Amino acid sequence: MPSAHKPAVSDTGDPLLLTPGPLTTGKRVKEVMVHDWGSRDAAFLKINAEVLARLPEIVNGGADYVTVPMQGSGTFAVEAMLTTFVPPGGMVLMLINGAYGQRARKILSIARREVIVHETPEDTPPDLAKVEAILEATPAITHVFVVHCETTSGILNPIAEIGALARKYRKSYLVDSMSAFGALALDARAIRPDAIAASSNKCIEGVPGVAFHQALTEFFAEGGQPGRGKRYTENCYVLIEGMRALGFEPLLSHNLQAPIIVTFRMPADPKFHFQEFYDRLKDRGYVIYPGKLTVADSFRIGCIGRLYPDHMRGALAAIRDILDEMGVKSLAPAKAA
Amino acid sequence: MPSAHKPAVSDTGDPLLLTPGPLTTGKRVKEVMVHDWGSRDAAFLKINAEVLARLPEIVNGGADYVTVPMQGSGTFAVEAMLTTFVPPGGMVLMLINGAYGQRARKILSIARREVIVHETPEDTPPDLAKVEAILEATPAITHVFVVHCETTSGILNPIAEIGALARKYRKSYLVDSMSAFGALALDARAIRPDAIAASSNKCIEGVPGVAFHQALTEFFAEGGQPGRGKRYTENCYVLIEGMRALGFEPLLSHNLQAPIIVTFRMPADPKFHFQEFYDRLKDRGYVIYPGKLTVADSFRIGCIGRLYPDHMRGALAAIRDILDEMGVKSLAPAKAA
Repeated sequence: MPSAHKPAVSDTGDPLLLTPGPLTTGKRVKEVMVHDWGSRDAAFLKINAEVLARLPEIVNGGADYVTVPMQGSGTFAVEAMLTTFVPPGGMVLMLINGAYGQRARKILSIARREVIVHETPEDTPPDLAKVEAILEATPAITHVFVVHCETTSGILNPIAEIGALARKYRKSYLVDSMSAFGALALDARAIRPDAIAASSNKCIEGVPGVAFHQALTEFFAEGGQPGRGKRYTENCYVLIEGMRALGFEPLLSHNLQAPIIVTFRMPADPKFHFQEFYDRLKDRGYVIYPGKLTVADSFRIGCIGRLYPDHMRGALAAIRDILDEMGVKSLAPAKAA
Repeated sequence: MPSAHKPAVSDTGDPLLLTPGPLTTGKRVKEVMVHDWGSRDAAFLKINAEVLARLPEIVNGGADYVTVPMQGSGTFAVEAMLTTFVPPGGMVLMLINGAYGQRARKILSIARREVIVHETPEDTPPDLAKVEAILEATPAITHVFVVHCETTSGILNPIAEIGALARKYRKSYLVDSMSAFGALALDARAIRPDAIAASSNKCIEGVPGVAFHQALTEFFAEGGQPGRGKRYTENCYVLIEGMRALGFEPLLSHNLQAPIIVTFRMPADPKFHFQEFYDRLKDRGYVIYPGKLTVADSFRIGCIGRLYPDHMRGALAAIRDILDEMGVKSLAPAKAA
């Protein structure tokens, strides 16, 4: 059945990616890719130097931090950070509450670095008292690792408080800010992480290569992290309010929810088939994301990328219509898995 | 002084990259990047699967070979090949005649793999009799490594003959075909390398990500490796003939020259300043490449990318004019360094 709606599209005519990444990026950001650059030519070297110089500004890094550009996926950058900063013989206290923390643990296991794990459920931040007790009891710990925003659930972890504990016990501090960098405030000279892993394609809304320069230009034009964070927070607010009004239940309470990606519990109604819901939403121009949780059957909707509150309202209207079409009556969530 | 010529431009208005990469790529190849794709969406997964499936066809790999996509630079892919295929305790016979062979040696040294090096000057292929003598005398050798086209000089190494020796002595065979894959014939089921390192941005004329699919479509439309190789060979012929007519001397004899990149000896005339020559050529729309040789002071001009013989003729006309402007009279090359 063809949709009665004209599908939502980005400024390049594509479905809107309400996902944790790859993201919807700006047209001008992508258009600078439609050019070939000589890698040793002065024009390219200048663009590259500007990108490297401006990135630490985003986290108030000043001259204390430098950019180390990495090619590859987010996992690749996190692996590079972990295996470069943690020497053989080091021991890492890992604060885990989702798939990306688990993946970091696996990376360190393959690299034969010792770890101590403080794991909490995917909807629960680390217990700071327990973290301190572990640090006090285990002087062999050399590093503390945490994921800033765990995309698994969308939870915001207390990186400043964890950083204060790392400083108090003189541990190195490694932060995976892959999905949060640029959108959530991070004052590196206050929190003093030894390294931060970040992405050009997440909240900086860039793509690989020279287009990143255009993305950074637009990022600073939007007001840097505060401006970017404000837009995403509005997207997140509109999304959660609208989904609640439709009867969906977010996994996280407000104080734990980062304005990056929102996890909703899967409705129990047997008429709600996620793949059909996904396909119908895509037909209308909205691409969402499956869940990755063990604590609950769920799906995720992202708030980041070149998306504005009206895009979220459009997605909500589409969701409302699709629920009607599917004949879904009750949105009471399924029991936790 | 403004140029009397209208600069040469690619179909996206850019200077032509007569370099070993990044290359001039096609407009349609780049234009497919001006779209955002969901990485878990069926449309993207299908494109990705097609790219992976079609790559082994280029080297007659049949069902005996699979594509392992790697993010990162060419060096990254070569490092991945070497450290994945050569186990700890392995020993690699390295055939080196340029910077990329040297870099592979450094990679294996950092990875603590044992190597035996057969090194020849940058304008000289490996001595097959010596290679065989080493293989006969050193049963501990587990792998043989060679660079297909050494971009340092543009030399073509005899990968089939080396492969026959590797087979005779039952050694694994690793080929860095980064700058040659797709342009030079390579019959994997005849030569039987254990792995081939290649690039999406060199002779396949792709860019990272989904645009590679468009590049592959155009590659096969051009007649695959024979068609692509024919165009590059024409480019190379036009370039060398034209440069010889101007008085420049290629480093390599015809039988050693791969149709990928050509090394020319630096003229000795004190009026020939390479940076000025480079800048004036770029003003006219042609980007060339500095040398990387130890055997001779030199510069390089590439023949690959979305370039046709008329582009080479345009570059030659620009070079002729620039030599006049610079007042360069004699192009006798400088003495070898």
